[in-house]
Amino acid sequence: MTQGTFYAVSCGAGNPQMITQEALNILKECHYIFYPKSPKNTIAIDSLSTLDLSEKTLISCLFTMTSEKGESLMEYEKIAGQIIPCLKEGKSAAMICLGDVSLYSSASRMALIIQKAGFKIRFIAGVTSFSAAAAAASLPLCERDEMLSVIPADAFYNEGKLEAQLKNEGSKVLMKMGRHLKEICLLLKNLNLISSATLIQRAGMEGEKIFRQEEILSMREEDHAFDYLSLIIIKKQA
Amino acid sequence: MTQGTFYAVSCGAGNPQMITQEALNILKECHYIFYPKSPKNTIAIDSLSTLDLSEKTLISCLFTMTSEKGESLMEYEKIAGQIIPCLKEGKSAAMICLGDVSLYSSASRMALIIQKAGFKIRFIAGVTSFSAAAAAASLPLCERDEMLSVIPADAFYNEGKLEAQLKNEGSKVLMKMGRHLKEICLLLKNLNLISSATLIQRAGMEGEKIFRQEEILSMREEDHAFDYLSLIIIKKQA
Repeated sequence: MTQGTFYAVSCGAGNPQMITQEALNILKECHYIFYPKSPKNTIAIDSLSTLDLSEKTLISCLFTMTSEKGESLMEYEKIAGQIIPCLKEGKSAAMICLGDVSLYSSASRMALIIQKAGFKIRFIAGVTSFSAAAAAASLPLCERDEMLSVIPADAFYNEGKLEAQLKNEGSKVLMKMGRHLKEICLLLKNLNLISSATLIQRAGMEGEKIFRQEEILSMREEDHAFDYLSLIIIKKQA
Repeated sequence: MTQGTFYAVSCGAGNPQMITQEALNILKECHYIFYPKSPKNTIAIDSLSTLDLSEKTLISCLFTMTSEKGESLMEYEKIAGQIIPCLKEGKSAAMICLGDVSLYSSASRMALIIQKAGFKIRFIAGVTSFSAAAAAASLPLCERDEMLSVIPADAFYNEGKLEAQLKNEGSKVLMKMGRHLKEICLLLKNLNLISSATLIQRAGMEGEKIFRQEEILSMREEDHAFDYLSLIIIKKQA
């Protein structure tokens, strides 16, 4: 029997309209759809609302995002142990992710584990959260010969590496800011970067909010409820 | 009469399957579709093959990509002069682009000119060429706390700035390499980065080719025919 293929499928940035034709077609072919479930959100599966899921087997998987490497690998291998029997049945399986699969996704890491076990895999590209955020704010990220740095800001802040990267040339996207958003905004102020900054929350989703320049410094406590779905674009005016 | 809206629409990375639902829906609503035409390619318009274009007015526009700023602005304003009467008729117009509109697109620059003239604009996000390339090569660009630099490599090479950026931490995408691809590959070799490099040509399109690691250094003359549709991903193994 031919074995099934494992697809790591980008679902776009949280809005069902942002999914590609290719992702929809692949998901139509897959019997099993694995989706990440976190205490905070299940936005990835919600973004499939245009798809008929009635004949699919949906399986939620919990990644705790532990920073302990051995523990993390064990979590992945446990879920791989659920996926592999599906592929052996000859059925294809997808794991979906928010944004683009090549950027910080559990689905791509899972795909490489499945590939090592001898199965066929494919990545399906999608719209990144920063493309969605730039579009929401009608903001070009890069023009002409500008470079772009995409920085997992919380980790860089913790390790004292953020300031040096902010001083590098070009545009910046600060992602994954969860815990230290306020401190990062203060750092932007101290580096005179607030006038080039735009903070976008829940880009393309219900409740989208955009804070431009000085507005970022006067965000209220309730404005910080979606810090984990926020990103900051720093772009000098041309 | 209500004025039409100008949409800067991402068509994905050159494959009609890579367009989003949102982009298709917007293009269905637009009477006028402006598309970039260059002596080299009209891939953007070809990527609309799944759309019924029979009742649309398609208008090609030539951007010479001159580096002379005044001349470039004149080109844009001339095309804006074609777009604005359409919007005044009350009809919506789109300008399409390859990849994502926020990254190096003529459409986003045009949108800002149209906005300044007092019209409503919207950006429609799409799949970037580097997401498509990473997916084609089944390569995660960034994992965990890695940062990403997207570098217009030809310009940075010319200005002697490429080496410093290559020495920065994290993954890199080298885009827009057209003229100096061979020299850039030699630089990667000298910096011991070839073993982390993957060159992807025509990602997701007919004739897609992938050169991994040392293969990049043994590309034949005919392999360089699509240098302007190539990009290099540099990603250290985890």
